[in-house]
Amino acid sequence: MLFLMGQVRWTSYSNGLGGHEGNIEHMRHVGQNGDRPRGSEKARIFEDLEQLEITRIEENGGGVSGFGNYGEGHFHELAAKWIQSHCLEPNPLQGMCDELVAHGATLGESPAEVVKKCKITFGMLSDPPAALSVVFDNGGVLEQICPGKGYIDMSTVDPETSTKISEGVISKGGVFLEAPVSGSKQPAETGQLIILAAGEKALYDEAIPALDVIGKKSFFLGQVGNGAKMKLVVNMIMGCVMNSFSEGLVLAEKSGLNPHTLLDVLDLGAVSSPLIRGKGPAMLQSNYSPAFPLKHQQKDIRLALGLGDDNAISMPIAAAANETFKKARSLGLGDLDFSAVYEAVKDLQRSS
Amino acid sequence: MLFLMGQVRWTSYSNGLGGHEGNIEHMRHVGQNGDRPRGSEKARIFEDLEQLEITRIEENGGGVSGFGNYGEGHFHELAAKWIQSHCLEPNPLQGMCDELVAHGATLGESPAEVVKKCKITFGMLSDPPAALSVVFDNGGVLEQICPGKGYIDMSTVDPETSTKISEGVISKGGVFLEAPVSGSKQPAETGQLIILAAGEKALYDEAIPALDVIGKKSFFLGQVGNGAKMKLVVNMIMGCVMNSFSEGLVLAEKSGLNPHTLLDVLDLGAVSSPLIRGKGPAMLQSNYSPAFPLKHQQKDIRLALGLGDDNAISMPIAAAANETFKKARSLGLGDLDFSAVYEAVKDLQRSS
Amino acid sequence: MLFLMGQVRWTSYSNGLGGHEGNIEHMRHVGQNGDRPRGSEKARIFEDLEQLEITRIEENGGGVSGFGNYGEGHFHELAAKWIQSHCLEPNPLQGMCDELVAHGATLGESPAEVVKKCKITFGMLSDPPAALSVVFDNGGVLEQICPGKGYIDMSTVDPETSTKISEGVISKGGVFLEAPVSGSKQPAETGQLIILAAGEKALYDEAIPALDVIGKKSFFLGQVGNGAKMKLVVNMIMGCVMNSFSEGLVLAEKSGLNPHTLLDVLDLGAVSSPLIRGKGPAMLQSNYSPAFPLKHQQKDIRLALGLGDDNAISMPIAAAANETFKKARSLGLGDLDFSAVYEAVKDLQRSS
Amino acid sequence: MLFLMGQVRWTSYSNGLGGHEGNIEHMRHVGQNGDRPRGSEKARIFEDLEQLEITRIEENGGGVSGFGNYGEGHFHELAAKWIQSHCLEPNPLQGMCDELVAHGATLGESPAEVVKKCKITFGMLSDPPAALSVVFDNGGVLEQICPGKGYIDMSTVDPETSTKISEGVISKGGVFLEAPVSGSKQPAETGQLIILAAGEKALYDEAIPALDVIGKKSFFLGQVGNGAKMKLVVNMIMGCVMNSFSEGLVLAEKSGLNPHTLLDVLDLGAVSSPLIRGKGPAMLQSNYSPAFPLKHQQKDIRLALGLGDDNAISMPIAAAANETFKKARSLGLGDLDFSAVYEAVKDLQRSS
Repeated sequence: MLFLMGQVRWTSYSNGLGGHEGNIEHMRHVGQNGDRPRGSEKARIFEDLEQLEITRIEENGGGVSGFGNYGEGHFHELAAKWIQSHCLEPNPLQGMCDELVAHGATLGESPAEVVKKCKITFGMLSDPPAALSVVFDNGGVLEQICPGKGYIDMSTVDPETSTKISEGVISKGGVFLEAPVSGSKQPAETGQLIILAAGEKALYDEAIPALDVIGKKSFFLGQVGNGAKMKLVVNMIMGCVMNSFSEGLVLAEKSGLNPHTLLDVLDLGAVSSPLIRGKGPAMLQSNYSPAFPLKHQQKDIRLALGLGDDNAISMPIAAAANETFKKARSLGLGDLDFSAVYEAVKDLQRSS
Repeated sequence: MLFLMGQVRWTSYSNGLGGHEGNIEHMRHVGQNGDRPRGSEKARIFEDLEQLEITRIEENGGGVSGFGNYGEGHFHELAAKWIQSHCLEPNPLQGMCDELVAHGATLGESPAEVVKKCKITFGMLSDPPAALSVVFDNGGVLEQICPGKGYIDMSTVDPETSTKISEGVISKGGVFLEAPVSGSKQPAETGQLIILAAGEKALYDEAIPALDVIGKKSFFLGQVGNGAKMKLVVNMIMGCVMNSFSEGLVLAEKSGLNPHTLLDVLDLGAVSSPLIRGKGPAMLQSNYSPAFPLKHQQKDIRLALGLGDDNAISMPIAAAANETFKKARSLGLGDLDFSAVYEAVKDLQRSS
Repeated sequence: MLFLMGQVRWTSYSNGLGGHEGNIEHMRHVGQNGDRPRGSEKARIFEDLEQLEITRIEENGGGVSGFGNYGEGHFHELAAKWIQSHCLEPNPLQGMCDELVAHGATLGESPAEVVKKCKITFGMLSDPPAALSVVFDNGGVLEQICPGKGYIDMSTVDPETSTKISEGVISKGGVFLEAPVSGSKQPAETGQLIILAAGEKALYDEAIPALDVIGKKSFFLGQVGNGAKMKLVVNMIMGCVMNSFSEGLVLAEKSGLNPHTLLDVLDLGAVSSPLIRGKGPAMLQSNYSPAFPLKHQQKDIRLALGLGDDNAISMPIAAAANETFKKARSLGLGDLDFSAVYEAVKDLQRSS
Repeated sequence: MLFLMGQVRWTSYSNGLGGHEGNIEHMRHVGQNGDRPRGSEKARIFEDLEQLEITRIEENGGGVSGFGNYGEGHFHELAAKWIQSHCLEPNPLQGMCDELVAHGATLGESPAEVVKKCKITFGMLSDPPAALSVVFDNGGVLEQICPGKGYIDMSTVDPETSTKISEGVISKGGVFLEAPVSGSKQPAETGQLIILAAGEKALYDEAIPALDVIGKKSFFLGQVGNGAKMKLVVNMIMGCVMNSFSEGLVLAEKSGLNPHTLLDVLDLGAVSSPLIRGKGPAMLQSNYSPAFPLKHQQKDIRLALGLGDDNAISMPIAAAANETFKKARSLGLGDLDFSAVYEAVKDLQRSS
């Protein structure tokens, strides 16, 4: 089992080390011997995970890589690092390939190389163009995917992108699973991610051991596109809740209430949530170090509204939230945590 | 310590049994002897709670009553019943006075009678006119409130109403505390209410033992009006979260996702809250038995928007939610639980 | 026929010159002889308008006054001046009483004095408290209104205020008409106001000659309150159109289009209106000299939303517009023309 | 000068009569001789319009056709018919080709055939895919466009589509102008359309005589994409105004006012516009015969919001309007006139 992951956009690249175009910075191949997992029951699940293949394609400090595993602890550690790196943008994979190679990984020359050596390959790219590029461009997944091999895309993309990738993989005889994760930096670090899988059920069943390591819970949601849709729904709700909470905080402050007390009151009540508990105190300190960048939150609400548009669903709250997040972007807050929408709500009240 | 509570609206009534006007149906006076609390430490806190005085003023099946306490368990039970009754509309107090009298309570002829006999009197009325009536009308609190006596109003009212009551009580030399509760039927039954007190700090300190029995936590928020404001802020956030959640549920359903799975996914994620966990499954069964009536939720958002208007605070999410809740009212859902806003969101998608 | 008008708030005042309280600055009585209108047919309509009585009650530079008429041209001129003064806030009537007196007017000591001398008295006050004060306070309309006399209130107030005044006048045997005007400074100057009358139809019929001079068209809308409601509906639409137009202007500018060209395109199309034609060019020059102050526009949308709330009408556009107008207030634009909402929309896009 | 127009979507077609794929139903070539315009000055402008070439490609009753002109009156008549047909959906061109051929037109086998014979070719397609197809597919414009030839696309498309077509045409040495029209059925019939041109200024100047016949006024707006953007801005404003007006109508009705009187009042006031005057009476009769289908109105607001998203522009009014138009679609009103949004606003108030 191998992982292909990262943040990349390239248009084409050659197969050779010397003649590559685009953004592939380093192409190395490193032989290695994996340690077999032993002992625990969970370890046995991973007994067949004996190889690590990675591909690093750097662009603006990003990259694509893949890895396998050699033992439970090791796998867990690597998977967690992978997820953490991805969720902690920008430049998630900087330096990570080298570290993995130092742990004995093999570096593939391209996604296709990784797929060639692995039964199941994972990808986690930063956006739809990158997710498509890793699959369809020269040296991409499609060049080696074939009957008996599976590709699991953990990127967060729109349903259309997922469907295109699925069709590509299936056209070559491979099987496909989309498996975006719900959760950001902290859940990633603590293994609390939720995996929203959809596509080929047999591939899902086979991949469960790996998915169980990456996330605390995975769901199989049916046909391809449903993983992407579920993630959009969840993120749309989250964005609306954050925006509602922000309006409440501003209303409290401007009405002469102590916003810290509001946090305490909310914490004891019906809307108490990890989101409000986790973000509230930092927001009152204007601390918006990005766990989930605001521009991505806004993009997800926009995509959710688009999904609603396809089905003629009227969602006035989400639409209003989208406009406030757009305002936050216009204020230059797009790269901060999405909780910075609080600043945009506050800003509405500033006097000039 | 005595309680005056219930749901009532009257305009004036005489002092005498024979000549009363308005809505006071029965006026009785029942002598009784209280049992002293013994044993536990908490019981000792209530050692001075030796009397029970209640006033029942029926209108449309509602009523006003007051009670004291004689021991921890007993007090706890009575207080819980009082709160439950209030939160479980309509007609919260039907039959309750009789039960209290059966337990040895004294029934006062009027709010003034209760105040006359008690150091601290509690009221919990259903809306601003009722809260004002109990204080300012003939036979009301003002007739007997005086230096050394306090009045605690646990009604949910707007800041202006609280301020009027406070000014009335203070003009007679009494002390005042507003103490609305946050939470609805279930928190009331399980003692999980949150008390949002504001006004006279000394009265708050003195009343803490009673407040601790009624709620799991009380906050002192400063000047009169702040309790009302805090409750509006909390309820506004709650209404917006419910509306956001409802839009997400509809989006999931109409996009081909299983809404039950959405509940499971949400339950594991950042926006997981008692509200969503508690209401979600019932909503999917179209079960809207009212814990917090939708029309009251809409009223609270409207009042919160008005509070924002006073301070020139722009709250687009709350405004959009208010319109959806108004739509729900227009659909005849006002007396159902506020989670019935889900039906209004769904309704937007119905084809005709 | 006499007019009582202006901007005033006072709580009580005595009848005497020496002992008055409150805000009545000067009380004079000036005899005069009116010129009869001659010649034109319209002039004959006003042949019975032979007296001018005014009351000036100054507060913060504002005032209350009343006038009658002596001939078509003269009346027209005075009426236009009156309306212009009112619409051109603040301090609409400063200096106007003196000018009227110089034209031969009689200055009454109080609204009651004016009512005493006139069959029909007109009032145009700046807000509900002022409108109520002129009627209900000492020296107010109610002291002299009686069978055979009518009171026409041209103030812009909420339906409740109109109803209160109507009840007061009727309780004394008088007849009442509410007659708010639709239109602002420029329509006032050019006699293009629209009069939205409601209440006593007979009084309306009798007052038509005067109403025809003040406005270009008057409507009789039925029961008291309907004039106020119609004005709220019209102003709500106007505020929403202005806000929509502002969003379009900003979208054009930020998308690289020439906003002046947008004005030209709009002017030829389906949404071309006096509003857009009249305000657009000034808005592009950031010229917001107040014809209709933004804070009043926001108030009217708020009142319209409240009217909708009473009837469980969901109005998401109006609600969103209200929030943007509130934002404009928070930016300190409340006293500028309501077209300054454009600045609030633009502001959303500023980078910081 | 020739016109290529209509409503079509096809993916590819061969050049031959026998072997065509896709949706081209009939391909005929008809020789003809044009009459030269004589007499008036305007006629002289069209002296060089001597040929008519049309292409008809039927799909679901739609089609593509092109025509030239032979004299002022004739041209005017044909151009008006062309525009009317396009604006009067669905199936705008059914039967029109035959009529044109009966007037002496030549029917081309494909868009490429038309371009081959004409210096300037016009297209007016129903949506972006159709607009792209006519240019890029086999037998499309690109096969014959070359230096010295121009293509003018009058379709309403997004800026990206316009840009793609422009790039395609320019890559072959041709010149391009986008020239969407603003206005619907009635303006088309009466020659009151507004043309929003952008792209190659020289081509615009050359085409002015034809544009002047089609519309009452044309604007040159700069670089390609600006015509599309301007149309989106104008239509977004129009949709918001219609929605605002609808909310006002419902508020009036539910508040006890006569909506017909509201129309009269509005007609005299600041927001009076051809839109409200033209649509209002029909709306009150629930007459929504489609001049501009609601689903297209909603699409334009969605695209305008997308344009705003690109530039981080917050537009809460447009966003709220978009949700109401989506609701209208969900109610099955998408094919009616966009003024049917009134039904969606009314629907919010229905009781069930």
